[in-house]
Amino acid sequence: MSKLLHPDRLFASCPQQRDIARALYHQVADLPIISPHGHTDPRWFAHNKAFGNATELLIQPDHYLLRMLFSQGISMEQLGISKASGQSSDADPAAVWQLFAENYSLFRGTPTRLWMDHVFSAVFGIDELLCASNSASFYAEINSQLARPEFLPRSLFERFNIEVIATTESPLDPLHAHQLLAADSWQGRVITAFRPDPVVDPEYENFPDNITELAQISGIDCSSYSGYLDALRERRAFFKSMGATSTDHGHPSATTADLPRAQCETLFAGALAGSLSAADAELFRGQMLLEMALMSLEDGLVMQLHPGVSRNHNPSLFAQYGRDKGADLPLPGEFVNALKPLLARVGNEADFTLILFTLDETTYARELAPLAGHYPCLRVGPAWWFHDSPEGMLRYRHQITETAGFYNTVGFNDDTRAFLSIPARHDVARRIDCRFLAQLVAEHRLTLPEAEQLAHDLAYQLAKDAYRL
Amino acid sequence: MSKLLHPDRLFASCPQQRDIARALYHQVADLPIISPHGHTDPRWFAHNKAFGNATELLIQPDHYLLRMLFSQGISMEQLGISKASGQSSDADPAAVWQLFAENYSLFRGTPTRLWMDHVFSAVFGIDELLCASNSASFYAEINSQLARPEFLPRSLFERFNIEVIATTESPLDPLHAHQLLAADSWQGRVITAFRPDPVVDPEYENFPDNITELAQISGIDCSSYSGYLDALRERRAFFKSMGATSTDHGHPSATTADLPRAQCETLFAGALAGSLSAADAELFRGQMLLEMALMSLEDGLVMQLHPGVSRNHNPSLFAQYGRDKGADLPLPGEFVNALKPLLARVGNEADFTLILFTLDETTYARELAPLAGHYPCLRVGPAWWFHDSPEGMLRYRHQITETAGFYNTVGFNDDTRAFLSIPARHDVARRIDCRFLAQLVAEHRLTLPEAEQLAHDLAYQLAKDAYRL
Amino acid sequence: MSKLLHPDRLFASCPQQRDIARALYHQVADLPIISPHGHTDPRWFAHNKAFGNATELLIQPDHYLLRMLFSQGISMEQLGISKASGQSSDADPAAVWQLFAENYSLFRGTPTRLWMDHVFSAVFGIDELLCASNSASFYAEINSQLARPEFLPRSLFERFNIEVIATTESPLDPLHAHQLLAADSWQGRVITAFRPDPVVDPEYENFPDNITELAQISGIDCSSYSGYLDALRERRAFFKSMGATSTDHGHPSATTADLPRAQCETLFAGALAGSLSAADAELFRGQMLLEMALMSLEDGLVMQLHPGVSRNHNPSLFAQYGRDKGADLPLPGEFVNALKPLLARVGNEADFTLILFTLDETTYARELAPLAGHYPCLRVGPAWWFHDSPEGMLRYRHQITETAGFYNTVGFNDDTRAFLSIPARHDVARRIDCRFLAQLVAEHRLTLPEAEQLAHDLAYQLAKDAYRL
Repeated sequence: MSKLLHPDRLFASCPQQRDIARALYHQVADLPIISPHGHTDPRWFAHNKAFGNATELLIQPDHYLLRMLFSQGISMEQLGISKASGQSSDADPAAVWQLFAENYSLFRGTPTRLWMDHVFSAVFGIDELLCASNSASFYAEINSQLARPEFLPRSLFERFNIEVIATTESPLDPLHAHQLLAADSWQGRVITAFRPDPVVDPEYENFPDNITELAQISGIDCSSYSGYLDALRERRAFFKSMGATSTDHGHPSATTADLPRAQCETLFAGALAGSLSAADAELFRGQMLLEMALMSLEDGLVMQLHPGVSRNHNPSLFAQYGRDKGADLPLPGEFVNALKPLLARVGNEADFTLILFTLDETTYARELAPLAGHYPCLRVGPAWWFHDSPEGMLRYRHQITETAGFYNTVGFNDDTRAFLSIPARHDVARRIDCRFLAQLVAEHRLTLPEAEQLAHDLAYQLAKDAYRL
Repeated sequence: MSKLLHPDRLFASCPQQRDIARALYHQVADLPIISPHGHTDPRWFAHNKAFGNATELLIQPDHYLLRMLFSQGISMEQLGISKASGQSSDADPAAVWQLFAENYSLFRGTPTRLWMDHVFSAVFGIDELLCASNSASFYAEINSQLARPEFLPRSLFERFNIEVIATTESPLDPLHAHQLLAADSWQGRVITAFRPDPVVDPEYENFPDNITELAQISGIDCSSYSGYLDALRERRAFFKSMGATSTDHGHPSATTADLPRAQCETLFAGALAGSLSAADAELFRGQMLLEMALMSLEDGLVMQLHPGVSRNHNPSLFAQYGRDKGADLPLPGEFVNALKPLLARVGNEADFTLILFTLDETTYARELAPLAGHYPCLRVGPAWWFHDSPEGMLRYRHQITETAGFYNTVGFNDDTRAFLSIPARHDVARRIDCRFLAQLVAEHRLTLPEAEQLAHDLAYQLAKDAYRL
Repeated sequence: MSKLLHPDRLFASCPQQRDIARALYHQVADLPIISPHGHTDPRWFAHNKAFGNATELLIQPDHYLLRMLFSQGISMEQLGISKASGQSSDADPAAVWQLFAENYSLFRGTPTRLWMDHVFSAVFGIDELLCASNSASFYAEINSQLARPEFLPRSLFERFNIEVIATTESPLDPLHAHQLLAADSWQGRVITAFRPDPVVDPEYENFPDNITELAQISGIDCSSYSGYLDALRERRAFFKSMGATSTDHGHPSATTADLPRAQCETLFAGALAGSLSAADAELFRGQMLLEMALMSLEDGLVMQLHPGVSRNHNPSLFAQYGRDKGADLPLPGEFVNALKPLLARVGNEADFTLILFTLDETTYARELAPLAGHYPCLRVGPAWWFHDSPEGMLRYRHQITETAGFYNTVGFNDDTRAFLSIPARHDVARRIDCRFLAQLVAEHRLTLPEAEQLAHDLAYQLAKDAYRL
């Protein structure tokens, strides 16, 4: 038996529930992974080159790790993070690994600990708790394995039993890697998803330049609002041809709008001129959510909304090291009023799907479950980011289910660029869902056959159906 | 043993707590039902006519059912809902029932499932899980039983062991059914409650007409603010003569106000003229909450406040099918500042009782418990609407008790028009309260004799006392 | 075995977790008490005089008790509370005690019950549940014991195994008691903490007079902003010489500001003139939080922020009886935007520590844990005030840990003036932390050796380290 990964981990410890959870889990543990939303790099699968060392693969790109270490006074320099200017770090990757190992106790009680232990034990077969004294042997062993063919991206993809994985790209991305994959005989299903933030958010860095680029890549003149919409339509079609079944939207809020065409044109002109006020930029983004919804009704792409993040909250860190270093923070959420314009227009369309995510858990029972438990177009996405964790997932099910049921949720998605942790993340979700179902069965709120069907649906079928995969 | 209703359902499954919960529950399971706030139709009890078919009784009036089915793409047409225009549906009730049965799995994990199973098993003696294949026999069996004398409203009232039930009426309602009941020899206690929203909310449909009607029904000239208040006073007295012990107020927020008389008169004139701004309408409603509180000090009616609902959120559904079809949504709540004017005036009056409800659970620990744990007039009403559920009730006790204790709460009320589910709803509340108490006993935070007294108080005595029944 | 204090109280009742919790607890139960933030009176320790009677010691200064009794219609008069005018009550202390005992059932399920039972049983050896019939013997027994030398403040301090306790004083306080203690041979470590609200909050009662007094006590001219800052600097140095290792700030919100010097000078002049608008007063307070942070960088004092309280919510009670009678209420909290100016300036300073508290539990997972899990200067303070309770502490750990870990928290502080309850409060915290750790171990999320180290750190080491004691 693994020392790191107890077979009953994350189940309730009382035998009445644990035994049911264990039985449910065994029926879903080995189901294929549906990964309908994430941030892996498609070039990994297109080029199938070996990953670098453990530090470069497991520490430096992981904002969960960086933020915790930074919070305890460890600098980005010490962690070997390259400067935003492009200047690369001269930190020794082995020393960075050692520093991480010495501070592994910081992650006690966090999901990072669960994911990393799973990677060490299940992926690399190292069945020990990482600490200062075994750090060097971990590092050597991982690096040695990464050089082997069984650890090439495609081999891991197959070993992880991934049925389909979606990456996330900008409309300005020519999707070279996806084109290579389409032309390749490898059978792994790697699809893209359409993330238009750079070309629909007037406050995005270089928005006017992005629109120029949009016109070029689409071949459609974007000087008018209708041309701009056509260019977006063209890009959606191209993404769809590269496998996309969904779009994704990362807005500061869930604000939507349904404005007269003349006002849209005025706002778009202001956005191109860089002259919109903050309120008008918000309004434009809101209008663009509606436009995206209307296009989804045309082309069938499922829409995802990930609102409510204060990005790059730490200005000096951002200036030195750029995005995604762990300095993004949640904001309070509001959906009932914010979504009203969009829902009034397309809320009752059963052919349209809008999946809502939140970092503000107070909206689960107060807004998201009541909304998704009424509007045909709405579904609640899984516990997201800071809440992609055992307690976060349990709160999610406890607060969502009584009002929205299970079938207005969409299963799990890992939302990660940490490829090696994908099995760990799906395993945590499957265990926690089985734990939750086991509680319902043990408390005679649900029959065991129902729980068995639900365990399968939550682990596999709901994601496949909701994302039209 | 019932297949649908396990005797230990909803108790914690660990034996240390389950056995205590079971013992506590057995002491309160058969106590009479005090139903101090709800929406049953008094004509049922006044006329005592047989209910129609299962679909008409159990599906079509239940907004919990409608919203869930609608959320999964089932239309109001398919459910046989009549148009707001009055045009009735030509859907076959048996086909509607079949559709419901085929989708019964949507309700897994929701309170609707608990309530319906209880109705099937405990009220109709059908001890099977509803599904597509047994749907027709359920439908026939329920319809056949509904035609029998034991299923007439008064028979069920007695069988359900209801000691008293309150309905809810507008001040414009002449209370014919209650008058008939008062003149009847039947001993069932069915009382009214005073819900003045149509005549105190300037944004209510047809407010000016409602005031005209108020003048007529009360016989008091309502052209001045003081006449208007007198008319309300007259109506309260009339409702009291029909058994009312409480008023109820469904406002968009908990805003209260204590304005100079001249400003009240100006606002009232604006309300009659239909010329108030949204902010002034809010202010007027706030002032009316204070006026109602002052009248409660005079006449002893207990006051209830149910704030924070965005009504009729789905405009096309509302236009076609009207109110109460499952399209109401919770709003964030705020009480500490909103209630300040009212509390400054009457907060320390121990003879006045104001019972507060919320759909925003974040206010339990942050606002409601601290407020009710200080002000003599305040009590916290039970978990409401979307939170009238096992998890909702558990969160309520876990978040309220440490600051407000048990004795600043008021027991349970079912708040429903679904008459047949009333025993189910009280049973869920009794089980969950016993479960919560059992946890405190098992963790040595409370003695068993104290828990026994509390179980009785929560199931019966607190509601009776708080509502002065 | 104690009838009041079961050895397994507050542990989960399922044996799988209870046995682990018990083992962990036994390793930390007798650790010395670190009390880095509280409100005991330093004169108790300086003068070491006997406490008065049970009513005066245990009831009348305890706002938790007062608020609950008041909420059920018991008046301040009946409780023998002196008027704000100074007029003392003529209520008989024995009668007040009797009234409390008769209403002891109100506290079922509240932390007050746990604390009081612990005081009765563990401090006074009275091992019975207080009620009307044994009230008089409790009163006599407690009073008799209080007169004995073993119940003098210093004796209790030693018996409670307090390693260090911090009191809280205004910069205008000459710290006579602390000076006496410094000159005394008694070895108990009683230190002060710097709470500058009266001289940094322009809306504090008598702010301009307070600044005059600040100039006098510091000997530094406060007519200019820079003189004012120097006076604060002088006071901080004096407090540091009296043992202070921390400052504390009780602001209405967490608003911070980083304003140009000219604007600071203008705001300060307005504050002295009493002419600031509410918004400008808020801005000035925000600026002062930044100034305090900058001074902390100079002098090493750890900074605490306790925001979000609506003080003296009940105006007639306040007019008659003054502050701290249980009429303070929580407000919604916001930190991500509010702290941004301060964090942009000093957030990445690992030598600076800012400990954040909240009464709005929705900020735990949404704001405090993400903030403290990123910024080196930030730590999350323990569950505070209304949440200093078993359920409150459990919610805290469940909602904080996955994002901030354990090492961005600072252990427990009792924050109380109820000296006799200090062991009870630390005992509750130790039990709940061990319970939480036991859950992680029982669910195989943490190893037992790690939990043992964490139990020690949470009970003792983290507070010592975070507060630099």
